[in-house]
Amino acid sequence: MSWNSFGHLLRVMTWGESHGPAIGAVVDGCPPGLELGEAWVQQWLDKRRPGLIRNTSPRQEPDRVRILSGTYQGRTTGTPITLVIDNVDARPADYPQDAPFRPGHADFAYQAKYGIRDPRGGGRASARETAARVAAAAVARLVIPEVRIAARLVEVGGEADEVRWQAMLGQARERGDSLGGLVECVAEGVPAGWGAPVYAKLDADLAAACMGINAVKGVEIGEGFGAARLKGSENAGGMAASGIDGGISTGKPIVVRIAFKPTSSIGGKGRHDPCVAIRGVPVVEAMVALVLADHKLLHRAQCGEAPTPTPPVKGRGVSGI
Amino acid sequence: MSWNSFGHLLRVMTWGESHGPAIGAVVDGCPPGLELGEAWVQQWLDKRRPGLIRNTSPRQEPDRVRILSGTYQGRTTGTPITLVIDNVDARPADYPQDAPFRPGHADFAYQAKYGIRDPRGGGRASARETAARVAAAAVARLVIPEVRIAARLVEVGGEADEVRWQAMLGQARERGDSLGGLVECVAEGVPAGWGAPVYAKLDADLAAACMGINAVKGVEIGEGFGAARLKGSENAGGMAASGIDGGISTGKPIVVRIAFKPTSSIGGKGRHDPCVAIRGVPVVEAMVALVLADHKLLHRAQCGEAPTPTPPVKGRGVSGI
Amino acid sequence: MSWNSFGHLLRVMTWGESHGPAIGAVVDGCPPGLELGEAWVQQWLDKRRPGLIRNTSPRQEPDRVRILSGTYQGRTTGTPITLVIDNVDARPADYPQDAPFRPGHADFAYQAKYGIRDPRGGGRASARETAARVAAAAVARLVIPEVRIAARLVEVGGEADEVRWQAMLGQARERGDSLGGLVECVAEGVPAGWGAPVYAKLDADLAAACMGINAVKGVEIGEGFGAARLKGSENAGGMAASGIDGGISTGKPIVVRIAFKPTSSIGGKGRHDPCVAIRGVPVVEAMVALVLADHKLLHRAQCGEAPTPTPPVKGRGVSGI
Amino acid sequence: MSWNSFGHLLRVMTWGESHGPAIGAVVDGCPPGLELGEAWVQQWLDKRRPGLIRNTSPRQEPDRVRILSGTYQGRTTGTPITLVIDNVDARPADYPQDAPFRPGHADFAYQAKYGIRDPRGGGRASARETAARVAAAAVARLVIPEVRIAARLVEVGGEADEVRWQAMLGQARERGDSLGGLVECVAEGVPAGWGAPVYAKLDADLAAACMGINAVKGVEIGEGFGAARLKGSENAGGMAASGIDGGISTGKPIVVRIAFKPTSSIGGKGRHDPCVAIRGVPVVEAMVALVLADHKLLHRAQCGEAPTPTPPVKGRGVSGI
Repeated sequence: MSWNSFGHLLRVMTWGESHGPAIGAVVDGCPPGLELGEAWVQQWLDKRRPGLIRNTSPRQEPDRVRILSGTYQGRTTGTPITLVIDNVDARPADYPQDAPFRPGHADFAYQAKYGIRDPRGGGRASARETAARVAAAAVARLVIPEVRIAARLVEVGGEADEVRWQAMLGQARERGDSLGGLVECVAEGVPAGWGAPVYAKLDADLAAACMGINAVKGVEIGEGFGAARLKGSENAGGMAASGIDGGISTGKPIVVRIAFKPTSSIGGKGRHDPCVAIRGVPVVEAMVALVLADHKLLHRAQCGEAPTPTPPVKGRGVSGI
Repeated sequence: MSWNSFGHLLRVMTWGESHGPAIGAVVDGCPPGLELGEAWVQQWLDKRRPGLIRNTSPRQEPDRVRILSGTYQGRTTGTPITLVIDNVDARPADYPQDAPFRPGHADFAYQAKYGIRDPRGGGRASARETAARVAAAAVARLVIPEVRIAARLVEVGGEADEVRWQAMLGQARERGDSLGGLVECVAEGVPAGWGAPVYAKLDADLAAACMGINAVKGVEIGEGFGAARLKGSENAGGMAASGIDGGISTGKPIVVRIAFKPTSSIGGKGRHDPCVAIRGVPVVEAMVALVLADHKLLHRAQCGEAPTPTPPVKGRGVSGI
Repeated sequence: MSWNSFGHLLRVMTWGESHGPAIGAVVDGCPPGLELGEAWVQQWLDKRRPGLIRNTSPRQEPDRVRILSGTYQGRTTGTPITLVIDNVDARPADYPQDAPFRPGHADFAYQAKYGIRDPRGGGRASARETAARVAAAAVARLVIPEVRIAARLVEVGGEADEVRWQAMLGQARERGDSLGGLVECVAEGVPAGWGAPVYAKLDADLAAACMGINAVKGVEIGEGFGAARLKGSENAGGMAASGIDGGISTGKPIVVRIAFKPTSSIGGKGRHDPCVAIRGVPVVEAMVALVLADHKLLHRAQCGEAPTPTPPVKGRGVSGI
Repeated sequence: MSWNSFGHLLRVMTWGESHGPAIGAVVDGCPPGLELGEAWVQQWLDKRRPGLIRNTSPRQEPDRVRILSGTYQGRTTGTPITLVIDNVDARPADYPQDAPFRPGHADFAYQAKYGIRDPRGGGRASARETAARVAAAAVARLVIPEVRIAARLVEVGGEADEVRWQAMLGQARERGDSLGGLVECVAEGVPAGWGAPVYAKLDADLAAACMGINAVKGVEIGEGFGAARLKGSENAGGMAASGIDGGISTGKPIVVRIAFKPTSSIGGKGRHDPCVAIRGVPVVEAMVALVLADHKLLHRAQCGEAPTPTPPVKGRGVSGI
């Protein structure tokens, strides 16, 4: 992982500002021969499109993706795949150059770091960048057909009841207020053995990927923070109860929960979401897909393709273990 | 980050198994001219030493560090610094080759990945590996003298009262049981501007570093999971209330909270901690130090050494912003 | 360095096929605040444009660059800079899908690796990709204003006399033949201290960068292959006679010589250069600029900005030393 | 590649100074299950041992390797493999702290970069570091049993006749002089498809690996500098005449030639080689083995293990192609 690229082997570099001409991603290291067309990427982009989902930003972006490289006759060639999404509904005039710093945004931090920033809608720090991740993840999904990834919103403003959310979100929108939210993502079908001990742990990479989504403030995997309140005798239910042990997948479903803070852009003239966690759902899926596809390749590099023969599990359930 | 190395510019590679002859770390990319001797590293190692801390594993390891390269006349030379810690109290015989998989441990996952594993005390997956991180972090601390890092245990088994912990831990030890715990780490003195947007976010790197510690199941930064239950109007307290915005430090203290699950090694013959979070405290500090030192160098690379002039903050506290 | 990206800190990812819709580069890690406009990049692209230079491919590409991200009001912002060049004179029909492998080209190797390839004009392996490098290097040049880089053709087909070249090239073109060539590049103004020992050696990185240019078969630095024929008493002229010692710059000019083989596309219907070394000249400059800018940032990361105080050189000229 | 580590997936980090307590290497990313013992590594180290080979440095180092991690019962486990070689015949007193800079050595460059250096025998820049590479490469060889690598000295001081070398070397030793040399390395058995286009080209990585060996000033691959003097009609002998096309192996033998300058340490008190190219032979083999093993894993990651079906070569020998 460096500044704007992501992944060990399936590397994604994203670029673009919220109100520049376009945003995009380059996906490098993709296996060859996979069927890939713009329609495939588009369907995933449509899932996160603002304006389509109720209670998201009124900015109207068609988010049409174009593939500029890396395929031939509808298949990946193993060379870098460039995905470009034009910014159509950019309104730079809404964001004057001398705009004050917005609390909770990256405005101040960018200025402090670089001494210069693109003030138009958060520039690079805009949630718009996540469209590039979703597009890149559409490619990653082709690499891991054996895996099913499903994220969903499980809480809004501390409330787990979906009916009450609607009222809360309506209210927040009226008042120019916003709400935090909790997203849960489950990945099924990950075989045992992906990940690596110590510094390329599957859970560590998932944590980085999800913590790097805008507005995310917490990530937990498996038992999560609840585990801190447990005794071992309550926790050690059975062999590989968790989807990841020691940084390596166990074959069980992997569960990740991600906390989004309330969007900071309350009031003001910019167009924003009352609850960014809503649009965070497809972005979480995207990041999980990217991490898993990357680790599939990493595992294949070191250990080859044949499934590692697993010795019989001795002593399962034996008392004292 | 790759298999067993960590960091963008201040790179650490650790190696060694729990019951092999030694463990160690190589720190690459350290600035030259820093005063470094074995005594400096030793004092940090002593803080995590099992056997010294009550309620930690009875394994007696002196954890004496030797520096084999990278210094001359007590100063770093800019070349790789090798830190070696011999395993003295290794007892491989306690861990027979045909030991059953222990639930919640990495045993099964390692076997599934590699088709072979060192079964002696968890091998590479042992918490013993963290001694190498603490040693490496002692070097990292020299890189960031302006930063103060302090972690502490704030909860054991869901209990925040220190006096009650002692009873709980004693009980757990007697019963061969174990407890989860919560560690909080605060870093003060980090100037505004460290970190980078999108994929080398300071918070994402901290999340990966902490999630990669053995037994960690959750990481939150700043407002954390609590933020998911907030409204924006409650959250946006003031300019840069958080230590990290948009992946970049703001100059405010950075707060990280880490959830440790109960240690899985209950019962059995191996020697283990009733609450790994206790020894997790210096390890959390170590990982935070490594990430911050790395990002200091990353920032200097891209933006130079002069503090970036920060424009006056307009409109602070202005209503609606 | 990974598949299609290049550089440690100033990272460049290029993408695009010869007869796809466009080619491009993303430059990540560029320092902020540098003046950058399309005109600056364009002037460097114009230097390598086929059709402009006599004795290069008749393909007519305007090679107009567009900057899609990473600048604001004419300055770099520290975020990724995307450079796109549309392919205008692409003629995919010239390259039928069932075209035979061309000897000396990457056709066979790509097919063997990926099981699929874009057969149109070499696809990704086309020398056209080098336009993206030249564009990226225009950004790199802004990072190293203290350095002057000048490459020139010094031999064509074994001949060092420029007048004779013209005749040889004309003849080769008529006969559908091609000629090898030798390019020499000198970098002046590189301060002492860039580079790093052992595996990020400045000369090793220069060698990789230049060997990675299409059709390059040899790279030598400083004394080069001539040194293999010398005695030490002839070679050790003075202190730091070479521009790089031990992988680190000495402050003296750095000289690199690069051998280009004759272009393989003799005959056939595609449009090609009779001597690719001619258009190799700006590409060599580009690669040298990218490596030097990257190493400037690497050096600043580890050692800071202040020039390292150099102790007085003792014993210079002392006999036997 | 970063400061002191090397390789994309099979990563090697070396450490240690010529006159420190030890030198060593950590090999990360090695596939599991490979038979590895100290004897295997030792036999390769013995081939480069000074003192064993005539006309090499009189320093007497047994170069006994110890494996401190990464194996269990004689097999690799997939975790980092640590190889340590103690420095036995170190004589730091031979190298006073105020020693003058030696021309052609890294002394001045290190001092200019770091402001500090280990002056004892070149410290980290000593050719002694290459023992760590040879040890690491012994592991790499296990990864590529299908490949045969053989390097040999083909020229000394411009002379290709072995009998005359002996006289020249004897003379040089007497006079405290030294000679350059040329090493050629051939790798056979590399299947078609290793390497990658553009920035992880197999030839570019080989060039970096070989140019990073001490005293190397030039690298050529396949036709090399000779190709610069050819016409295409002379060069394009047949399909895939070269071992690498477009950065990817073709299945033909890969030939690399490396130019060593005369060792700079003429006269003085240190103990040195009259022709470093002699000991360069096993080091060249080592670097080639490391690059090839790394690329085998890279290829497997992206393209899987099944040999890519290669379509019939059409039009071979067709006139004009």
